[in-house]
Amino acid sequence: MMSTKITGTGSYIPNNIERNEAFNKHEFHNEDGSSIKHHNEVIIEKFKAITGIGERRYAEDHLTTSDLAFFAAQKAIEDSKINQEELDYIIVGHNYGDVKHLAEQSDTVPSIASRVKHLLGIKNPKCVAYDLLFGCPGWNEGLIQANAFIKSGIAKKCLVIGAETLSRVIDKHDRDSMIYSDGAGAVILEETDEEGGIITHESATYAVDEAHFIYFGETNHPEITDKRRYIKMYGRKIYEFALNHVPAAMKSCLDRSGYNIGDLKKILIHQANEKMDEAIVQRFYKLYNMDMPKGIMPMTINKLGNSSVATIPTLYDLILKGQLEGQEINKGDVIMFASVGAGMNINAIVYKY
Amino acid sequence: MMSTKITGTGSYIPNNIERNEAFNKHEFHNEDGSSIKHHNEVIIEKFKAITGIGERRYAEDHLTTSDLAFFAAQKAIEDSKINQEELDYIIVGHNYGDVKHLAEQSDTVPSIASRVKHLLGIKNPKCVAYDLLFGCPGWNEGLIQANAFIKSGIAKKCLVIGAETLSRVIDKHDRDSMIYSDGAGAVILEETDEEGGIITHESATYAVDEAHFIYFGETNHPEITDKRRYIKMYGRKIYEFALNHVPAAMKSCLDRSGYNIGDLKKILIHQANEKMDEAIVQRFYKLYNMDMPKGIMPMTINKLGNSSVATIPTLYDLILKGQLEGQEINKGDVIMFASVGAGMNINAIVYKY
Repeated sequence: MMSTKITGTGSYIPNNIERNEAFNKHEFHNEDGSSIKHHNEVIIEKFKAITGIGERRYAEDHLTTSDLAFFAAQKAIEDSKINQEELDYIIVGHNYGDVKHLAEQSDTVPSIASRVKHLLGIKNPKCVAYDLLFGCPGWNEGLIQANAFIKSGIAKKCLVIGAETLSRVIDKHDRDSMIYSDGAGAVILEETDEEGGIITHESATYAVDEAHFIYFGETNHPEITDKRRYIKMYGRKIYEFALNHVPAAMKSCLDRSGYNIGDLKKILIHQANEKMDEAIVQRFYKLYNMDMPKGIMPMTINKLGNSSVATIPTLYDLILKGQLEGQEINKGDVIMFASVGAGMNINAIVYKY
Repeated sequence: MMSTKITGTGSYIPNNIERNEAFNKHEFHNEDGSSIKHHNEVIIEKFKAITGIGERRYAEDHLTTSDLAFFAAQKAIEDSKINQEELDYIIVGHNYGDVKHLAEQSDTVPSIASRVKHLLGIKNPKCVAYDLLFGCPGWNEGLIQANAFIKSGIAKKCLVIGAETLSRVIDKHDRDSMIYSDGAGAVILEETDEEGGIITHESATYAVDEAHFIYFGETNHPEITDKRRYIKMYGRKIYEFALNHVPAAMKSCLDRSGYNIGDLKKILIHQANEKMDEAIVQRFYKLYNMDMPKGIMPMTINKLGNSSVATIPTLYDLILKGQLEGQEINKGDVIMFASVGAGMNINAIVYKY
């Protein structure tokens, strides 16, 4: 029986730690430009209580998204022990391309995937390198696409990367800037004769009312009038949207997999906001009249923040490498990857390790 | 027998015509900043002789890439007579996202595909909208991906769009700025019981030496020292690369299709440079010891310039709608879509109408 399995993982966590205290002297404003009637210490404390974020990682100044992607890719290739020249696809999920330190512009030509291929030194022209823009769920979606390529017979080995440098597109006058982080995670997905691997997936795009919940907007500072734009979001709307739609998508994915809720050993959910993630997973279990099991949802957000497409493959890599205390995934475990983000997009994958 | 066929086409050609004379007063410089020792009239005449471009189209100031994509998509949906709520995928090939008139920044969040879905008003969340970055061959590659999704059983109807506004990323002090144009083309690809459709495809990424042949670079004007970057290319290297690799990729694609060179009725090649396109197709026929047949390669570049991902679907739409003089595609015709561009990427598709 043919299946598609992840045979190697890698991640790159930037060295620069940006602690919450680093935001103590930021001048925060509301979206309408008005001042915020709290001291930064209070703002940051509330922020930490909701999101769970105590610190985040920023890429070093000389690096861009494609460098981070390359570092994670190297490790995944090494881990899988494949010959990199055998890769049929390099798929990079990202959202803003390469944004140099202090630059305003995104650089997306050539694609980040081409740059990664260049940095890896892969010669085989039949290894097709492309980028995928799908908001934070972009890495999951890359895995879904790689799986479709393998199933349709046009690929056997794919490198799927999620890489982002959100630190380069944040408005420092916006409290939400504290959420964002940089990082990269990568896996090798292969056709194998083993059982398991990707069992089912679910993907969705909600765009009628939701398309612009995460958007590119100007600074909150009322006296800065340049037209430079930054990552912006309507946090409250996203929270409600996620709670209304993600648990049902996860359930649909699990129910079609043939596995039961009791079979599920881990949920690796996009690390966007700790309270939101907990509420999603609690509601997911409530759909089965169950309480959320302890330890089901490994988290890295307290130390790594929200690195968009990179959160899930990084989390997966850390668990498999034994670097996340108290967390492990063992042979035969049924797990789920789930994500929600700009688009608004939602996806989930049931995967048997 | 299941096949995947294009059941509807649409394109959007911007209203603003930018004629070659509009460049008469531009101050052109070489890449190293030095002046060019010719009058602009001479430069423009030489440019026209090589590229075939006499005029190009620029999007109106209030429009962005996603608007162009939406206009083309509407027409393709109407032409196919499908219910747009039945779409499983919206795939948009582009390279620079939405760049507003006079803005420097690319806006890629949400994805252009999400914006198109929003503008179309498609409610079905299972219609998955994502963007694909693959240089100028991005629309071809979207068609290849849609085909894989249909063959792997995860889709039946896909909207594949190529849309670009290169006018927003050009350096007016660079002669190459005269090449670029704006536009959008779209098709509906469906699973059908008819014979034909997509027969074979070929995709390749050359990144060891070639990754940065098309890149994002600063102005050629030596006195402008801002860090703003623009689309840039090494034209001579691209020309040689294309001649060395595109004909062989086309041959590989055709040979695997089971059809003979004599069966091929049309080659719709990315409209990048008339002399280069002719040289590619001539060399392709030479691989079969044949001369290039007259009328085999329909061209729009003289009036429409190089609109990147939009050139092939626009050309295809114009031919099917009877809007390209002396050109037609009839039931049972075997045709080829072929492209080359940033990455450097090459692809080809053999398609039976």
